[in-house]
Amino acid sequence: MSQTSEPLRLGIAGLGTVGAGVLKIVRQKAALLEARSGRSIRVSAVSARNRDKDRGVPLKDYAWEDDPVTLATRDDVDVFIELMGGSDGPAKAAVEAALKAGKDVVTANKALLAHHGQALAELAEANGAVLRFEAAVAGGIPVIKALTEGLAGNEITRVIGVMNGTCNYILTRMEDGGLTYDEAFAEADGLGFLEADPNLDVGGIDAGHKLSLLAAIAFGTQVNFAGVELEGIGKITIEDIRQAADMGYRIKLLGVSRMTGRGLEQSMAPCLVPAGSPLGQLTGGTNMVVIEGDQVGQIVLRGAGAGEGPTASAVMGDVMDVARGLRVSTFGQGAKGLVSATPARATTPAPYYIRTALVDKPGALAKVAAALGEAGVSIHRMRQYDHTNEAAPVLVVTHRTTRAALDEALAAMKALAVVVASPVALRIEEV
Amino acid sequence: MSQTSEPLRLGIAGLGTVGAGVLKIVRQKAALLEARSGRSIRVSAVSARNRDKDRGVPLKDYAWEDDPVTLATRDDVDVFIELMGGSDGPAKAAVEAALKAGKDVVTANKALLAHHGQALAELAEANGAVLRFEAAVAGGIPVIKALTEGLAGNEITRVIGVMNGTCNYILTRMEDGGLTYDEAFAEADGLGFLEADPNLDVGGIDAGHKLSLLAAIAFGTQVNFAGVELEGIGKITIEDIRQAADMGYRIKLLGVSRMTGRGLEQSMAPCLVPAGSPLGQLTGGTNMVVIEGDQVGQIVLRGAGAGEGPTASAVMGDVMDVARGLRVSTFGQGAKGLVSATPARATTPAPYYIRTALVDKPGALAKVAAALGEAGVSIHRMRQYDHTNEAAPVLVVTHRTTRAALDEALAAMKALAVVVASPVALRIEEV
Ligand SMILES: NC(=O)c1ccc[n+]([C@@H]2O[C@H](COP(=O)([O-])OP(=O)(O)OC[C@H]3O[C@@H](n4cnc5c(N)ncnc54)[C@H](OP(=O)(O)O)[C@@H]3O)[C@@H](O)[C@H]2O)c1
Ligand SMILES: NC(=O)c1ccc[n+]([C@@H]2O[C@H](COP(=O)([O-])OP(=O)(O)OC[C@H]3O[C@@H](n4cnc5c(N)ncnc54)[C@H](OP(=O)(O)O)[C@@H]3O)[C@@H](O)[C@H]2O)c1
Repeated sequence: MSQTSEPLRLGIAGLGTVGAGVLKIVRQKAALLEARSGRSIRVSAVSARNRDKDRGVPLKDYAWEDDPVTLATRDDVDVFIELMGGSDGPAKAAVEAALKAGKDVVTANKALLAHHGQALAELAEANGAVLRFEAAVAGGIPVIKALTEGLAGNEITRVIGVMNGTCNYILTRMEDGGLTYDEAFAEADGLGFLEADPNLDVGGIDAGHKLSLLAAIAFGTQVNFAGVELEGIGKITIEDIRQAADMGYRIKLLGVSRMTGRGLEQSMAPCLVPAGSPLGQLTGGTNMVVIEGDQVGQIVLRGAGAGEGPTASAVMGDVMDVARGLRVSTFGQGAKGLVSATPARATTPAPYYIRTALVDKPGALAKVAAALGEAGVSIHRMRQYDHTNEAAPVLVVTHRTTRAALDEALAAMKALAVVVASPVALRIEEV
Repeated sequence: MSQTSEPLRLGIAGLGTVGAGVLKIVRQKAALLEARSGRSIRVSAVSARNRDKDRGVPLKDYAWEDDPVTLATRDDVDVFIELMGGSDGPAKAAVEAALKAGKDVVTANKALLAHHGQALAELAEANGAVLRFEAAVAGGIPVIKALTEGLAGNEITRVIGVMNGTCNYILTRMEDGGLTYDEAFAEADGLGFLEADPNLDVGGIDAGHKLSLLAAIAFGTQVNFAGVELEGIGKITIEDIRQAADMGYRIKLLGVSRMTGRGLEQSMAPCLVPAGSPLGQLTGGTNMVVIEGDQVGQIVLRGAGAGEGPTASAVMGDVMDVARGLRVSTFGQGAKGLVSATPARATTPAPYYIRTALVDKPGALAKVAAALGEAGVSIHRMRQYDHTNEAAPVLVVTHRTTRAALDEALAAMKALAVVVASPVALRIEEV
């Protein structure tokens, strides 16, 4: 069934966690891959920084290139596989060189695509090349494929995702281990879960990159990472987690994107989700993406978001598609047709969770309620907690309200003399 | 990026729930489909039994054919879409005619493929045609795509699925509504959830069809529906459900397939799963498929398993693939390469749940324990319940054991004078 029975020849730049994983699959599963694609999948050449490092795989069968750009344009490379990382530098240079040479490209690099996705998609198209990036979003979960291909008959209405395993691990450990944020962060760090720059994880940047790619496919828009409202998990306290649990919610670093009348919403921020929902049930380092379409309703995909095997599995899925002759546009439609959408600050009305603390005086709670009411924010539930010092923790779950009304209410609360802790608000995402 | 910019012309046979849904998408989303596939998707001709029935969609723009076989071979049809149903008769005749004429075929018909999948895959291949069936398994969930394409770099180790929404609805209502099996069955019937022959649902046949298709792709085997061990949900009592819950489990009609040294295991039977697992959390009519691969670990997919929108979404996913030029073999590899696997009765050791009832005499429980022990079945937990009549309900959760040892233990239990209710055993699937 494949288009051709010529072997498919790969050039792999980057032999770290993911690159070594891909090499192992190509070596160990040659027969299976050939049976499934109808052609043999071979590696012609590889590249990394250090030629002498032991990668757990013998490299002598492959040509070595010090320069990934040279690798990308070799005559014996049909598909260039970029697994070095970084939004610019050699990754960008090599991917561009490969596309210009008409080579198909597979990459796991979300930073590269979040920053240069539109230009690269146009370059691919101009050169009749395919650019695939399943591994860049949610690791082993075939979510790019589901969204771009499987659900191509749908108007997508919302995409939601927990796509940074490290953040979910930290939040889970705060809840189940009773750890503070700093303790859980240190534990994750000790386990090697954090990027060299931890803000990529806990600041929501890495997950924001992924969300921007999903949004482009879902809504036919140009990738716009700068338009993602980013908020990290650093301000989440153990009390937030406990109180949210008490109200039937869990806190997740949640990516949410939808197209609204006012523009494209893309937010990556801590949110509350119902504890019993699939997202609420997600613990540890696992990822989950929820896609909602006008025809299909809600599709939930769950799996490992990182690691050698899962990420290499996603890379190989793309390689097999290329081997089988699939030629889908980078973001699911012609690059020139992708529209530049105005970013909209989360405008869809939602319920919110508000945490603050009040002086322990009669009437304090009533003043807060009044401030909310005057801003047009109606209260669904309100709780005051036991306290040992002079300030009494208070939390409020509102009915659905606009972000503007909420901001007005928060400002009014801050101005109250009885409010001793600057109020923190988290959106409750209805799933 | 598409292979060609010629329009893709469809012929649709069957204008019931799914067929009308597909027509609506093609009509209402023409611009979106064209932007995504690079070509216009048009309907040339349609067929159903009754030409005069109102389908909620105007049909005057399309040629009408009384005979689906004639429709399937029309010159102005590139893709034949079979949405009539039935494992033989017109569905089979029309799909064969289309493939012989070299037309690509998209179908939602699990019965057809479960019975004739191998022959049809060979026919498609011989004629250079593509045969796709995403809608046949788990409705709107793009599971065929995930398994065949996204996870093509994996050796699949196990596939598990809850793939009959009606059965899951009945079991959920028994649990949350405290209904007997007959009451829940009647409720589902009243809601129109049951097939004309309800045994297709509650007997596990429909779900068994789906499992046999997943197994073929997962393990590179010829579809073998006759090799599926089938057991319906009719013998599940409300007590089983309560006692399972009490032990931390939920009962699901679970399809499980794995390749073992003794052959291909395919079983569709009521099983216990941990209440907190994604499968255990699945309530109502929703479907879930769990795929395990040696690289990717566990991927969980969840969504609507039936209904107009979700099923039409899956059909359109296949149509869009064809429009974009994807040409994957029917079961993920060349039909001639699919092996005929020996069916293996569930041989993988598993823990079991056993329910029985004993006369209320001292030493009765000890006799049961001894019978299990002699067969080599070791007991993990054992409970005797309060009772109002002379027989005391007893349930046992075993440690992992082989089916052979279990059967020996059950036979020994039956022979005991103190055992007054023939013991019922359900496998506990570890997920
Ligand atoms: N790890 C995961 O779980 C995961 C999951 C999803 C996506 N990704 C993405 O996959 C990509 C690779 O991640 P990784 O975890 O495999 O990274 P890694 O372990 O740090 O490996 C990076 C590799 O790139 C090579 N490299 C760096 N600069 C190079 C240069 N200028 N020329 C040639 N080779 C160069 C390195 O060579 P040396 O080995 O010689 O230093 C190393 O082999 C990144 O884009 C990452 O975001 C990773
Ligand atoms: N419904 C679901 O949720 C769902 C989900 C997954 C898969 N499926 C599968 O999808 C297929 C269609 O299901 P459905 O629910 O849409 O069935 P349906 O509502 O009963 O529709 C069947 C259609 O086929 C037509 N038909 C029957 N025999 C025909 C013949 N000899 N010639 C021409 N047309 C004929 C009927 O014509 P008339 O209308 O004139 O009687 C009707 O339009 C089945 O294979 C089913 O298993 C359905």
